[in-house]
Amino acid sequence: MLNNRIVIIGGDASGMSAASKVRREQPDREIVVFEKSQYTSYSACGIPYFISETVKDIEELVVRSPETFREKYNIDVRTMHLVLEVDTGNKRIRVLDKEKQQESWHEYDQLLIATGGTAYCPDIEGHNAENVFGISTLKSGLNIEHYIEEKKPKTAVIIGGGYIGLEMAEALLIRGLKVCLINRGKQVMNTLDPDMGEVISDAMRSLGVTLHLGESLVSFDVKNNCVSAVITDKQSIPADIVVLGMGTSPNTKFLQSSQIALGVKGAIKVDARMQTNIKDVWAAGDCTETLNLVSKQHTYIAMGTLANKTGVVAGSNIAGENLMFPGGVGTAVCKICSYEVARTGLLEKEIKKLGIAYVSAVIVSKTRAHYYPKSKDITVKLLAEKNSGRLLGGQIIGEEGAAKRIDVLATALTHNLTLQNIIDLDLSYAPPFSPVWDPVQTAARKLINEI
Amino acid sequence: MLNNRIVIIGGDASGMSAASKVRREQPDREIVVFEKSQYTSYSACGIPYFISETVKDIEELVVRSPETFREKYNIDVRTMHLVLEVDTGNKRIRVLDKEKQQESWHEYDQLLIATGGTAYCPDIEGHNAENVFGISTLKSGLNIEHYIEEKKPKTAVIIGGGYIGLEMAEALLIRGLKVCLINRGKQVMNTLDPDMGEVISDAMRSLGVTLHLGESLVSFDVKNNCVSAVITDKQSIPADIVVLGMGTSPNTKFLQSSQIALGVKGAIKVDARMQTNIKDVWAAGDCTETLNLVSKQHTYIAMGTLANKTGVVAGSNIAGENLMFPGGVGTAVCKICSYEVARTGLLEKEIKKLGIAYVSAVIVSKTRAHYYPKSKDITVKLLAEKNSGRLLGGQIIGEEGAAKRIDVLATALTHNLTLQNIIDLDLSYAPPFSPVWDPVQTAARKLINEI
Repeated sequence: MLNNRIVIIGGDASGMSAASKVRREQPDREIVVFEKSQYTSYSACGIPYFISETVKDIEELVVRSPETFREKYNIDVRTMHLVLEVDTGNKRIRVLDKEKQQESWHEYDQLLIATGGTAYCPDIEGHNAENVFGISTLKSGLNIEHYIEEKKPKTAVIIGGGYIGLEMAEALLIRGLKVCLINRGKQVMNTLDPDMGEVISDAMRSLGVTLHLGESLVSFDVKNNCVSAVITDKQSIPADIVVLGMGTSPNTKFLQSSQIALGVKGAIKVDARMQTNIKDVWAAGDCTETLNLVSKQHTYIAMGTLANKTGVVAGSNIAGENLMFPGGVGTAVCKICSYEVARTGLLEKEIKKLGIAYVSAVIVSKTRAHYYPKSKDITVKLLAEKNSGRLLGGQIIGEEGAAKRIDVLATALTHNLTLQNIIDLDLSYAPPFSPVWDPVQTAARKLINEI
Repeated sequence: MLNNRIVIIGGDASGMSAASKVRREQPDREIVVFEKSQYTSYSACGIPYFISETVKDIEELVVRSPETFREKYNIDVRTMHLVLEVDTGNKRIRVLDKEKQQESWHEYDQLLIATGGTAYCPDIEGHNAENVFGISTLKSGLNIEHYIEEKKPKTAVIIGGGYIGLEMAEALLIRGLKVCLINRGKQVMNTLDPDMGEVISDAMRSLGVTLHLGESLVSFDVKNNCVSAVITDKQSIPADIVVLGMGTSPNTKFLQSSQIALGVKGAIKVDARMQTNIKDVWAAGDCTETLNLVSKQHTYIAMGTLANKTGVVAGSNIAGENLMFPGGVGTAVCKICSYEVARTGLLEKEIKKLGIAYVSAVIVSKTRAHYYPKSKDITVKLLAEKNSGRLLGGQIIGEEGAAKRIDVLATALTHNLTLQNIIDLDLSYAPPFSPVWDPVQTAARKLINEI
């Protein structure tokens, strides 16, 4: 069983984490990877920093090249190959060689689907115009960079106020563009509660971003395959370039005719070992569902961390081990100019939907001792179950040193800690690093009076 | 019972945390605090930053003044009052009014001892010379600052390479002094394993500190109440000023004739409610023992965080609640110039002493994505129990953004997490904050192969 052929669809974080793990465990096993682009193992999360020219060369975002995988790892990586169909009955896949424009069938003994996700856009005229950019592959990063260099756009409209929206706003501000951002919700960052989102909306305005909140994309004005304006339900906003930040969709369309079960948002259903409903077919990364450990519900979260983790778990199991991926708690962090934003766990609206009685508190503290230079404001919001005091979620906004504090809350959520547990934690303190009560503990101390 | 008189000895972190907690719960209760200095509620941890002139005014280190406690909190704070004796049989204490030089007895119904700790120095000639400085009270901070201003010392000898030694080395380097540091151990920072201590020794040398490692203080050369040289077991080192960094001793000498039980290093024995062996006598902060949650042994750890926590617990219980302080895990962090040092849990030598089979690993990673500007080296060492993989300790050295990562390990230690648990944690990631695998997880991934 373990000397058979493993085929992996997708050569980025989860696919190559799995391939590397299999190779470590099974030096002689045949591993074939089909990757639709010319790159492997790259940091899509780094693209905004390439566009802002913080990172000068896009090759810096590549962790390991196809050549490295071929030569050092003996992994048969075939770039520019797009998988069109999975035939689980005959254990084979149909693949398009994009350079030769030839299709062929390839058999597998075990298959790992690691196709990732793509920037979502509704299927309206102009969604693939030459100045409309998603930010999900290195190619998309190169495309927008080349367009900015050649066409010198002056105004950008970002559609969506999530992580990508914020990071791209920073990048385009740095490049000197006038930046507008359209957001369906009343505040940016709908992965935070609205009261915390408001803090970020205010910060973005202070950075010079024009926000159009509570507005939705309706259509594009398109001329010569180029969008000239974004039409919302309220107005028309001129745009030299358009950036899509409306979230990520799993790349699973090619599976719709297969027997592989899809779940939330069309993401692939997997068990804790990253196996699909079909024997010998595994999936990992941004094309799969994730179990939220707080809500105990399956969700869709596209995150590089989860892609790496689930890739290793899938690879281990394909190599004959028995490793489980327990799930995530929805931790995420992003930066816009000097502001840091972090979140983990559930939002108020999610807690209400689950019917859990809860309490919440917001505090403003400092990132360092109050007297220490560069001590900055940090706002922490905690949500906890009423009576038990079990932590349900945490949100942090601040300047340098604020965001990474979310990790203690993520750890607390994963292991069902209560507010008293958080207060009791022996967290580190010295004046350059924290007030004597870390801000997450200050928030817990306030909230514990409410339960 | 709850309307009787509470007397608190010591007006800093733990004493005033307790006093404030009692006041919140019992608005009318009589609370008397005897404090030997003229200050209350100050950050002793901030003194090195006052000496380096990073903090301009020592008053900035005061969180709440005696006047504030008297006027806003109705707490009878008596500064410049030194408690000389506790007579638990008659529930009274003997107090010296330092200004009037008068002694008197004061009765209590409940007593809280929160006298903190003092920089340790062996009882040798010159230990209280005018240019020998401990760093444990605001007064000691003012003393050294005045001495530097007036006498313009050129060379400093720091005795001891712990937190205070490192922080004072930074402060005195900033003030332009030539700094020597004597350390008994072969590497500085004996709260880290020697291999990690070596990294800090190298860093200190690169900053221009002359290290004399494996050398012990023997005596002082004293002239006119002034130390002119520090005599070690190997040589004589000229010194214009001497800084004591040999650790902290609990201020409990005045209790030696009492019935109150003392433990490790003479620190007061307390239960989880911060009660001593004597009814109605409580203790909190740097004068007490702390239960180490990893070794399950009582230890002596002088830390502002623990002082605040145990003060709140003592105050709650004195006010009739029932709150427990579970103990600590020995988390600490400090900065020397651009270097950050953090530790939590047990050292290799402590694990060996406990007879636990263990494994260890050291990794070097980055504080941010490898391609992100200002991504710095971070070295992480983890120690875990063999077979079970339970975390036993963690040590981190790095530059900006490194140290606070210790908090995840402190949380993991407190709740008995294993290396696999740490790998599975949904920690935050974005290129400005972390590699996709946080360095603590990279260390856990390496070490899990060893168990």
